[in-house]
Amino acid sequence: MNNLKLNPLKKLEIIIEGAHQGFATDLLDRAGVKGYTIVGNLSGKGSGGFHEGHLMFNEEEVMVMIITAVPEELVAPLLEGFTPFFNQHSGVMFVSDIQVSRLVKFTR
Amino acid sequence: MNNLKLNPLKKLEIIIEGAHQGFATDLLDRAGVKGYTIVGNLSGKGSGGFHEGHLMFNEEEVMVMIITAVPEELVAPLLEGFTPFFNQHSGVMFVSDIQVSRLVKFTR
Amino acid sequence: MNNLKLNPLKKLEIIIEGAHQGFATDLLDRAGVKGYTIVGNLSGKGSGGFHEGHLMFNEEEVMVMIITAVPEELVAPLLEGFTPFFNQHSGVMFVSDIQVSRLVKFTR
Repeated sequence: MNNLKLNPLKKLEIIIEGAHQGFATDLLDRAGVKGYTIVGNLSGKGSGGFHEGHLMFNEEEVMVMIITAVPEELVAPLLEGFTPFFNQHSGVMFVSDIQVSRLVKFTR
Repeated sequence: MNNLKLNPLKKLEIIIEGAHQGFATDLLDRAGVKGYTIVGNLSGKGSGGFHEGHLMFNEEEVMVMIITAVPEELVAPLLEGFTPFFNQHSGVMFVSDIQVSRLVKFTR
Repeated sequence: MNNLKLNPLKKLEIIIEGAHQGFATDLLDRAGVKGYTIVGNLSGKGSGGFHEGHLMFNEEEVMVMIITAVPEELVAPLLEGFTPFFNQHSGVMFVSDIQVSRLVKFTR
């Protein structure tokens, strides 16, 4: 029954070059983030011009989006962790409010 | 002119195994949801470890994200409908606030 | 240090037929949007029935989602620009609140 209660979390959407996916997920893992979902094969335009998505096997995907949901207290340390990265590399991180029904999946 | 007014809706993002996509879209259809968009070929890490996305034809995609927008009054029945599923299977549902310009596309 | 401050922006998620991607990104470019990310190969159900995503090379993708983040003052002109399009074509635009750490990437 208490599964039906909605609990607030912060959603992070991290859009970066596929070559840096491992760096980002390592940083999430070390911060204690319990799970994430990765959307690959993105194309787009940013400060570096237009990027075309590749669908070839074994090729580095140009841009990926890593989606995760974290308790609010993890947002500041994650921002701090990613800041030196975004100072040097293209990419963005969106932070937004979401609600989830099963909080146990997202907290330590 | 009234197309330019923004109307509040709830966005649902349902991330589940591709094998359960039909169950989820059937549940949405029966609840009266008018449309949804499916992002396939996701990879990620969750309670069940890391999942690799497949791009082969005719293979079950490991994880998919179903995105839909519904009137607020549909959120509780949909949560109730999905709760037994998420009690047994991996996956998550994010609920968030969005606005849309053409409400007629989302309401019965 | 001021990189760690979060700044509010509006996220737009524009889900349209792949054939109209160029129209949409041209409209974003002309409005001064600095970047966007495109998720391709979507399937889904809308007013026009179920659409199957294709993964073939050189084929038009059926539906795409264009994700961008803009200052609030760009939302009204973009809605106005897209309204004649959505009056004639299938597709939706979601508007939501997000925060970003590096505002310089999103403003002129």
